[in-house]
Amino acid sequence: MTPVSVDRHNEIVRAAYLSRGFTSSEAEDAVRLCESASRHGIRTHNALKALHLDDHFGSKAGGCVPGADVREMPSRFDAVRCWDARLKLGQSVAFQAMETCIELADKYGSGTVAVDNAFHYLWGGGYVIDAAKRGYIAYTNCTSTLCEVVPPGGKFPVLGTNPHSWGLPTCDALGYPVCIDWATSTVAMGRVQQFLREGKPLPSGAAVDADGEPTTDPAAVRYLLPFGAHKGYSLALLNELMAAFIGGSLPSLRGLPEKKTGGEKTSAAFYFHVVHPEALASGLFAEGRSQAENVKAVLQDILGHGNEQCIIPGQFEAEAAAESEKAGGLLFTDAEIAGFNELAAGLGVAPLRESRRAS
Amino acid sequence: MTPVSVDRHNEIVRAAYLSRGFTSSEAEDAVRLCESASRHGIRTHNALKALHLDDHFGSKAGGCVPGADVREMPSRFDAVRCWDARLKLGQSVAFQAMETCIELADKYGSGTVAVDNAFHYLWGGGYVIDAAKRGYIAYTNCTSTLCEVVPPGGKFPVLGTNPHSWGLPTCDALGYPVCIDWATSTVAMGRVQQFLREGKPLPSGAAVDADGEPTTDPAAVRYLLPFGAHKGYSLALLNELMAAFIGGSLPSLRGLPEKKTGGEKTSAAFYFHVVHPEALASGLFAEGRSQAENVKAVLQDILGHGNEQCIIPGQFEAEAAAESEKAGGLLFTDAEIAGFNELAAGLGVAPLRESRRAS
Repeated sequence: MTPVSVDRHNEIVRAAYLSRGFTSSEAEDAVRLCESASRHGIRTHNALKALHLDDHFGSKAGGCVPGADVREMPSRFDAVRCWDARLKLGQSVAFQAMETCIELADKYGSGTVAVDNAFHYLWGGGYVIDAAKRGYIAYTNCTSTLCEVVPPGGKFPVLGTNPHSWGLPTCDALGYPVCIDWATSTVAMGRVQQFLREGKPLPSGAAVDADGEPTTDPAAVRYLLPFGAHKGYSLALLNELMAAFIGGSLPSLRGLPEKKTGGEKTSAAFYFHVVHPEALASGLFAEGRSQAENVKAVLQDILGHGNEQCIIPGQFEAEAAAESEKAGGLLFTDAEIAGFNELAAGLGVAPLRESRRAS
Repeated sequence: MTPVSVDRHNEIVRAAYLSRGFTSSEAEDAVRLCESASRHGIRTHNALKALHLDDHFGSKAGGCVPGADVREMPSRFDAVRCWDARLKLGQSVAFQAMETCIELADKYGSGTVAVDNAFHYLWGGGYVIDAAKRGYIAYTNCTSTLCEVVPPGGKFPVLGTNPHSWGLPTCDALGYPVCIDWATSTVAMGRVQQFLREGKPLPSGAAVDADGEPTTDPAAVRYLLPFGAHKGYSLALLNELMAAFIGGSLPSLRGLPEKKTGGEKTSAAFYFHVVHPEALASGLFAEGRSQAENVKAVLQDILGHGNEQCIIPGQFEAEAAAESEKAGGLLFTDAEIAGFNELAAGLGVAPLRESRRAS
């Protein structure tokens, strides 16, 4: 992994989004999330993947509309908002939705934004980490662009890899926010390809073949299974049902405009929720501790008693961010750097530049 | 399984709670949840288990205080409440908290109640099913009375079996509410005993021995592991951290007053959240569907395409309720009936009576 200049990375990503017709504000939001993902070691959601997604499902495929204006739907409820995103860039919608949730939480104790007609926001962890660093308890889920996951006992994919992301304001306690952020499939389809290349079997319970039969042969895999049997399945289903209450259409058509019939929709839905931690505080913390001190004491207890080596969710992201900081740039593999530079050449902007912090 | 008269069952449970000093209102709440659990086939949380819990951790052990008054803590936030439960009966606190969440959701779109100094509410599914039948999206989590679960890679239990429960208003679509309700451990400690009696090995990844090493030998099991590796672990941790923000003390001491040091607390915490489904509705449902019609269309899509045999979370509970209805009473095993009748004799009330609906 080589550290590269954040400015050069951002310049390339910005140019790529602008060249696709996105507004400068949308391009900045795209840059912000890609930079954050790469800084936190989230290699599955770097800028190259974001642009790949935009190629196949986004602005080049009609699933995302550059420059779209989000429309707020009328509502009689003060602490919950519902938006029609009109297929605006997911990152812009998500940053704005989290900001609105925070404003509502400041006022009411909690705030919620539900989003219909949405296009993939890429990395839920990025939004909840931001909010948690600002001191809030944050949550988001969304329906994935495509359904690749089969319910246990079924044959056909009607569930997305539907992620859930929670961020908790634990910077005082740990130095970083707890970030719980994962897809509800056992593995991602990209991992199946990796197993295939490496000639290794999949873990059991991860995927099914064309007949819906469980398989560990990566070559036979057609669809994925949820993690944790019925428990993970129910969490994948939860996103589908939340989307159904918001405005999502038939899961089997999502992301597949070519299969669309009649007036069915093929877009995703988002759900965001923020709680102000002060609104939860009983004030009755043991030994006269403050809320922050109490959270720290609880985390120390969890990591004590022989549990010192346990991993806290969000720790890997925090360690990657520290490594990026130490290296003085974003860390990419040679193949990734080649990808960025090919992109830069096509856009007529400067390639990535290696960046090492003087030490 | 024999169907027994609901009235007789309730009379015994009521008498048992009254004899322990609970108020008549508390006894009714205890009756209501036990009846609902048995009606829905939740045999792990019937009245015999509830009283067993009260013996070991509740009113007979100082963990629950009959007649306690819940105190609402001062707050500047309108849509979120924080309560000091003062160790009042968990069922009474939970019913009231869900009612308050519904009132707040009617007004603000969502409502939240956080509860400190709580005693076990037994079956989260019961509260969210009630709310979902009334048309709301409901969620609750709590910290379990005891920590029996070790974080992956650790040696010591610092996590409860910490359940999560969601209820969704899908009666129009399915005839029953979707109810997602499970503990975050792979199995319950009671199941380990069952494996031991049956001489069968545990599933892998379910438990550890005294050294923190994974084991499938039920005789060697000391503590449990979370389901779904790091994903289930993070969901168990989430309850511990929510509790820490609310007012929960060190997890390793919870439910163990004899190990308590200084001013640490040994009580649990609850979290309740309700969303008014209208607050989420974009109104932009495909093919001019209403929200309820859209949820039905999505569920039909999920259960189509060869997925007709898939189980929807909450289906087993609904089927059990239909079976109870058909049988004209609550269904218990002979051993359970003997347990109730022994209890009835000690309390001086009438034993269970078999009850068959005339057909």
